[in-house]
Amino acid sequence: MERTLINELGGKKGSEVTIKGWVSVRRDQGKMVFFDFRDRTGAVQGVTLPNSPAIEVAKEVRNEYVVAVTGKVNERPEKNRNDKVQNGDIELEILGIEVLAKAEIPFELGTEVNLDTHLDHLPYTLRSQRSRDIFTMQSSILDAYRNSLRAHGFTEFVAPALVGGDAEGGAAAFKVDYFYERSAFLATSPQFYKQIMVGPFERAFTVAKIFRAEKSATTRHLSEATCLDFEMGFINDEREPMAVLEAVVKDTVRAVAEKHADIFERMGTTAPLVPEEFPVFTLAEAQEIVAREYNRTIEDTRDMSPEDERQICEYAKKNMGSDFVFITRFPTAKRAFYTYEDPSEAPMSRGFDLLFRGLEINSGAQRIHDYDTLVQRMKDRGLDPSKFSYYLEAFKVGMPPHGGSSTGLERFTARMLEIPNVKEATSFPRDMGRIDHSLGND
Amino acid sequence: MERTLINELGGKKGSEVTIKGWVSVRRDQGKMVFFDFRDRTGAVQGVTLPNSPAIEVAKEVRNEYVVAVTGKVNERPEKNRNDKVQNGDIELEILGIEVLAKAEIPFELGTEVNLDTHLDHLPYTLRSQRSRDIFTMQSSILDAYRNSLRAHGFTEFVAPALVGGDAEGGAAAFKVDYFYERSAFLATSPQFYKQIMVGPFERAFTVAKIFRAEKSATTRHLSEATCLDFEMGFINDEREPMAVLEAVVKDTVRAVAEKHADIFERMGTTAPLVPEEFPVFTLAEAQEIVAREYNRTIEDTRDMSPEDERQICEYAKKNMGSDFVFITRFPTAKRAFYTYEDPSEAPMSRGFDLLFRGLEINSGAQRIHDYDTLVQRMKDRGLDPSKFSYYLEAFKVGMPPHGGSSTGLERFTARMLEIPNVKEATSFPRDMGRIDHSLGND
Repeated sequence: MERTLINELGGKKGSEVTIKGWVSVRRDQGKMVFFDFRDRTGAVQGVTLPNSPAIEVAKEVRNEYVVAVTGKVNERPEKNRNDKVQNGDIELEILGIEVLAKAEIPFELGTEVNLDTHLDHLPYTLRSQRSRDIFTMQSSILDAYRNSLRAHGFTEFVAPALVGGDAEGGAAAFKVDYFYERSAFLATSPQFYKQIMVGPFERAFTVAKIFRAEKSATTRHLSEATCLDFEMGFINDEREPMAVLEAVVKDTVRAVAEKHADIFERMGTTAPLVPEEFPVFTLAEAQEIVAREYNRTIEDTRDMSPEDERQICEYAKKNMGSDFVFITRFPTAKRAFYTYEDPSEAPMSRGFDLLFRGLEINSGAQRIHDYDTLVQRMKDRGLDPSKFSYYLEAFKVGMPPHGGSSTGLERFTARMLEIPNVKEATSFPRDMGRIDHSLGND
Repeated sequence: MERTLINELGGKKGSEVTIKGWVSVRRDQGKMVFFDFRDRTGAVQGVTLPNSPAIEVAKEVRNEYVVAVTGKVNERPEKNRNDKVQNGDIELEILGIEVLAKAEIPFELGTEVNLDTHLDHLPYTLRSQRSRDIFTMQSSILDAYRNSLRAHGFTEFVAPALVGGDAEGGAAAFKVDYFYERSAFLATSPQFYKQIMVGPFERAFTVAKIFRAEKSATTRHLSEATCLDFEMGFINDEREPMAVLEAVVKDTVRAVAEKHADIFERMGTTAPLVPEEFPVFTLAEAQEIVAREYNRTIEDTRDMSPEDERQICEYAKKNMGSDFVFITRFPTAKRAFYTYEDPSEAPMSRGFDLLFRGLEINSGAQRIHDYDTLVQRMKDRGLDPSKFSYYLEAFKVGMPPHGGSSTGLERFTARMLEIPNVKEATSFPRDMGRIDHSLGND
């Protein structure tokens, strides 16, 4: 019999159907065996009655067995109805069970385990409702973010992961054994390539992998991460990329809020608060506010500390109804070498960060577009311009004023669902001690 | 004055506007200077008359200068009209030119140069009409392919690039220096991860980077490539993933044919021929046909040679009106270890290739879903199952019959536009001798 998807069962009351999926729950009550089955469209309850031809198989089936179940879609008696769950008004009276694959599980799905155990068993634990919710959300974020950038006239391109050197210098890069005993490196950012793409397309974006060899074991660092990067030409200052970013983030929040109310509810959170306009504070303003409001001394006035980020977000949420906060006007010295500094604004530059629910999820800026200025800045920072000749060619052949930003997909997903550790919002996280398995156990 | 995009000029005849963009062409005719300007929306002709306040600047401006040009949108006299080009009925009478960035170019844009020179100067040559066409097409392919998979119920996920070992064994993997003197590798395929994702989502896809350390210098090999991979559960045989692939490819062709007629024309080709149903030949049938039609002897009956691929495509195009051909029933021994072989069909397995205009762009199969069978196949191939314990967990906890396929984005793009070398359809190609620059020259 042709497969019926579980979310189609409500329209087939009284019919005989075949569903295919996994056994989520099995309750053997002696004469009868009850099941919860799931497929990609949802879940349904089934019962094998004592006289069912399937009763013998039903007694052998266990959790996570993959099954094709034939049965009759019955309306539940009034007293057993549950309007709050999918298919809460029906029950499948099981007439036949075909086992497509057996299963042996390490623990029940949904068991609360520590993060390491969760990650050690990802090929299994990804099937939990919580993980499916997180990565369904991530899939929707990717789609909405890209769609919004396309609607704003951006062209997508593919940035490389293999690069010739650790050019940006800021982050430690992984070294790769390349051909003929040469070394290559893994990209720490698609920055140079998206700037180059301003030449052909003015507005370009990429969803790219970045790799960081920093020995960092916080809840927000990954060895391999995904960034949503865009860059745009012919801007006047950093406010244009900020406006595009704000629009794209709003479009994304709107899309996931419409689509995933159930996920927000199951995760115990709500769609983010989005005001008419995102609050914008300079670094100095933000630190003044948190010093005053939280009766604190600011230790480093040149950058936001994690505590500063948390508190300014708390402040903006309470007083301005926003889960997002822009911070601007960081010292040029604290930003990447290509960050634009206007003489009238020195020593501050036209960089910005976007904070979301206490965490920086995006960093952006207007960039230097003048060839000579860029070469001079490299020299000032002790970088050798000859090592950047490929990148610099884009500037030699005429580059408009431009800027852009980079959003961390895993961080964005984590804050969207208020997950404390970014690793849980990373499908297959890599860190100092883990590639799939914990490396210590190999 | 606010920027007017060049594709908006037609609606502003008689007005004074400011455009921003690059100088594509400059013709100094002594008293007057003529220009072609371009921005991301198109091109327009401009003229600086002898009495224009901009005449001095116009004489200094060169190709690829970035400019803001203020001028009056004039209708061209009847005899100068060209209905075949964008803005062929108007001309910008230039009143002011502000130079936003100067430029110094290695050769005129659009000059026919050899591939190495083209690649050495990519930050510049990507601005050519040809390169912009290729990567505009690629951007649209990415979008259409993903949208179609989403419409077919697939969830997108992010596959990792760093992996613990060269597990599949088939392709040489690049080695990465990981933390604490450990080694990691770059993924040669997202295969294991998309199979794992069948567990949570049944239908999963990813656009992933793959890396191949094979010493291969053909027109169709890259060290770093992009694949469009999907995997789906609850299939009966390989025909279901073939049907999804066919639908997705048709959706993609339809989308780009509608959107990019101009690109197909400029590239001297047409949108691909797509029949009601893609032709399907077994390997044996395909080789019998090309042996007969081209009066040839087949040297290797276990796989398609590049010549076989070209000829069966030529045959299918001529006789069946299709630029796409499926080949099925390859010997199991020639396919990846996880390929499903039905006892009744042995020694052939349920793998397939999709050829497009003479080249394999996609490979797929039904996979083994039974844990014990998979372990046995590993052993038969001399692989150590204990090294695959992470992957195998997905099978231990119950895996449905499943299959999928992988499309090479760069190859798909190259054949779409009939570009001979796949490197030209790769935004920043890496091969044995090149990462950005030719490595020989560094």
